Amino acid sequence: MLKPLSLCLACLACSASADVTLINVFEVPEGQRDSAIASWEAARDFLAGQPGYISTSLQASLAPDARFALINIAKWDTPEAFAEATRKMQAANIFPPVEGLRFTPALYSEIRAD
Amino acid sequence: MLKPLSLCLACLACSASADVTLINVFEVPEGQRDSAIASWEAARDFLAGQPGYISTSLQASLAPDARFALINIAKWDTPEAFAEATRKMQAANIFPPVEGLRFTPALYSEIRAD
Repeated sequence: MLKPLSLCLACLACSASADVTLINVFEVPEGQRDSAIASWEAARDFLAGQPGYISTSLQASLAPDARFALINIAKWDTPEAFAEATRKMQAANIFPPVEGLRFTPALYSEIRAD
Repeated sequence: MLKPLSLCLACLACSASADVTLINVFEVPEGQRDSAIASWEAARDFLAGQPGYISTSLQASLAPDARFALINIAKWDTPEAFAEATRKMQAANIFPPVEGLRFTPALYSEIRAD
């Protein structure tokens, strides 16, 4: 169950913004980094045109043997907008799977900032 | 081996900033979320006073059963500053471990932004 966004909008003491952050953590098999980035780019090109998209950033680990070689951090207006956009993307079947690539997307809200 | 930061500073066409991003991905056992946040707060209080610290943000998953319930995203001036700060924190032994908590910190640089 998703946390209702209305809690953030209603709470004057809450520093969290009303939008949500998608964080997608990639476990990339050796030799598949470029393919994973190309797949991410295809997904970004599709998602950037969907309602509710705000921005995205792809982070690459400095250490080549990091457990998570790539992490995508994106902003969306609402959980519903992200869910609808990814549903459309899956239906469109725009990119081939990358062998052995494991990715774990989830939506987040900021609870502490300093 | 860490990627030399001088590449970013020297490349005029590169949109990546010169600082680095720490992303720490937390796998939190059921019932340990509050303890994990308290532990993170203790670490933040220590690290925020160290040379090279820029900012930090703790992201909590909207779904309670997400694989990664908490993700910390922080900015540091350089990989060396972060390494020295965490070395000091470990030596100071400032917080008790949280049973079953798995965390995977790594340094990242932005390779795509939109």
